[in-house]
Amino acid sequence: MLNFQLFIPTRIIFGPGKLAELATTPNLPKGDKAMIVIGESGAMITNGYLDKVQAALAKQNVSTLVFDKISPNPQSDQIDEAAKIARDKKIDFIVALGGGSTIDAAKAIALLLTNVGKCWDYIQSGSGGGINAENPAAPLIAIPTTSGTGSEADQWAVINKSGGAEKISLGNDSTFPAMSIVDPELMISVPPRMTAYTGIDAFFHAVETFVSTKHQPVSDMLALESVHLISNYLPMAIAEGDNIEGRTVMAWASTAAGMCETLSRCISQHSLEHALSAKYPTLPHGLGLAKLSVPYFKRLIPGSPDRFEDLAMAMGYDTQSIDENMRATIFLEGLRNLLERTGFNDESLKTYGAKEEDVPELVAIAYETMGKLFDFTPTDMTQEDLECIMSEAIAS
Amino acid sequence: MLNFQLFIPTRIIFGPGKLAELATTPNLPKGDKAMIVIGESGAMITNGYLDKVQAALAKQNVSTLVFDKISPNPQSDQIDEAAKIARDKKIDFIVALGGGSTIDAAKAIALLLTNVGKCWDYIQSGSGGGINAENPAAPLIAIPTTSGTGSEADQWAVINKSGGAEKISLGNDSTFPAMSIVDPELMISVPPRMTAYTGIDAFFHAVETFVSTKHQPVSDMLALESVHLISNYLPMAIAEGDNIEGRTVMAWASTAAGMCETLSRCISQHSLEHALSAKYPTLPHGLGLAKLSVPYFKRLIPGSPDRFEDLAMAMGYDTQSIDENMRATIFLEGLRNLLERTGFNDESLKTYGAKEEDVPELVAIAYETMGKLFDFTPTDMTQEDLECIMSEAIAS
Repeated sequence: MLNFQLFIPTRIIFGPGKLAELATTPNLPKGDKAMIVIGESGAMITNGYLDKVQAALAKQNVSTLVFDKISPNPQSDQIDEAAKIARDKKIDFIVALGGGSTIDAAKAIALLLTNVGKCWDYIQSGSGGGINAENPAAPLIAIPTTSGTGSEADQWAVINKSGGAEKISLGNDSTFPAMSIVDPELMISVPPRMTAYTGIDAFFHAVETFVSTKHQPVSDMLALESVHLISNYLPMAIAEGDNIEGRTVMAWASTAAGMCETLSRCISQHSLEHALSAKYPTLPHGLGLAKLSVPYFKRLIPGSPDRFEDLAMAMGYDTQSIDENMRATIFLEGLRNLLERTGFNDESLKTYGAKEEDVPELVAIAYETMGKLFDFTPTDMTQEDLECIMSEAIAS
Repeated sequence: MLNFQLFIPTRIIFGPGKLAELATTPNLPKGDKAMIVIGESGAMITNGYLDKVQAALAKQNVSTLVFDKISPNPQSDQIDEAAKIARDKKIDFIVALGGGSTIDAAKAIALLLTNVGKCWDYIQSGSGGGINAENPAAPLIAIPTTSGTGSEADQWAVINKSGGAEKISLGNDSTFPAMSIVDPELMISVPPRMTAYTGIDAFFHAVETFVSTKHQPVSDMLALESVHLISNYLPMAIAEGDNIEGRTVMAWASTAAGMCETLSRCISQHSLEHALSAKYPTLPHGLGLAKLSVPYFKRLIPGSPDRFEDLAMAMGYDTQSIDENMRATIFLEGLRNLLERTGFNDESLKTYGAKEEDVPELVAIAYETMGKLFDFTPTDMTQEDLECIMSEAIAS
């Protein structure tokens, strides 16, 4: 029987050119002092996006302070540094301008701005302090410049422990962005491989949340839409980065998959990948997922054939013309085909330092830091299964 | 190009038996004094629902005061009376327990609790005062006991002017319920014709918002799901009221269609019906819609054939086997069939006082009080068209 919760309080403003609405929206959070959080690469400055955001906020009589030290796979001490500044300067709300790392970091900064202590105190697993935040986070406006993490539509912030090998989510009902402006024009500048990494991440959010034991009617609809759109448009978004149609479809598919992360939950493929990118910090998250995916899903298909057949249909396969027992495995064919068309067959985890001998440690990290996601995985996997998946991913 | 806003901040808790969560949820609004708003019929008392809600709130240390004077098609002076009591007693939040009328009334009471003046001051069209509320509404928990209006998932309150013939919506971002508990077990007691009236209302929310010029990707998905489910399950929910499967599906379809009212907008069929039930106050809203629908939609189909073909497919028709020019009109066949299976062919607007000679006045009321919805209607209709639709509805 249907049984679920719907709760996504974020106001999502979607469409090419919508960044302009930042200057006129009547729905800004209260206050006149904002911290704008951007990545350390300088891309937000050279692309002119930071200027646009500052100018829009100035029109709303909001003064801004920029924190520009967020790395890919954001580190807990970066959060602590930003939070200290935000507290000292009595910042009213946070604006995140960038990719998923920036938005995630900004969520954690917003939580620390209104609460005492340090970032890792609020992490609920691994070596985290396990403290529940006493106060709701400060309001956050998310302006994503990549399509993929879906961080603009969920409450989760994935943070790396500074000096450690842990990569763990934090978040609560108050860390949803108050507003997210998803403007595909800001995504034109994303380089081809980054487009592939972030786009495939969104694809796996949709696939994982669709087969998750926490799936429900709205996540199902959004996940199938997202799988359908990404299968058809990701190769175009990679090959023709300045095609606004491809960028717009990918932006919507990614936001929809982000909503799925909230309404359902990701499964253990994400735990395994977080172990990989915690151990090898330069590894792009999407590449880790892409390499894990074939060995991972081939073990999941037999337990949930109907769900994987639905995914195969969303990818455009006419499963009715195929023998009933084989329909679900067509998903694997579609997945292999998508990885080929998006350039993942030319890349390897070894480039980023992955080694067969690390496999037992990687599986242990996956359990320790994101073990919760195993509960939402529809098929139980043994330690040996997980080690095999990790080995095959590293060898491929 | 995709261009839309998503914003439904309500926490929707859905499932049979979920009313029990009211006693334990950590997400109650702040405060320890609630006003419970119920209808004047006494059904919430005799069914034992009021006792359950009071007991659950008592476990959360919330004291309650009951306002039990809301009529079907709630009147503005009922709102004013309740708001005065709520202000005097320093109520912290409102709980609506009942059908759409009760939830709508409670939204208006919540808005008046935190603002000065009277209900009609905040009505934005017709003879309304046109004032924008200065403060956000007090928090509201909606507990629907019928499936249909979708009021649990939108910000709109439809209010009748006491002593007048106007029926107009009010609402803003703050009048979304903070939480809605949609428990299909509470709907078992709804009598067959009321089930038909409310269920067909949900059907038209989905159909109208799907063909509306304000439709967007998420409302499209939810609307097609809702049309599909209602076409298949409404006759069962009417015939077997104690079948929890039918009630659960109808409850979800109705909530989904309510989300569509927020994400997209209803169109002028709703304006025409609101004129009917403003003029003939005992007329059930769903019956008015049912009688308007065939004359209304047959004029809309030629302008939006693809949208109506999609709706016909959602109703289960294999449109591909039909001549291309005829596919959209299959929707009309499906609609006639649904009205037949749900008993609407045995009822007449004349029973409630409708007369041919009132037609020009009815069309005038529709323009005056809900004229805005004509802007979202995909095909322009002349005054003559609208009079013909109204005449055919009254004659049928």
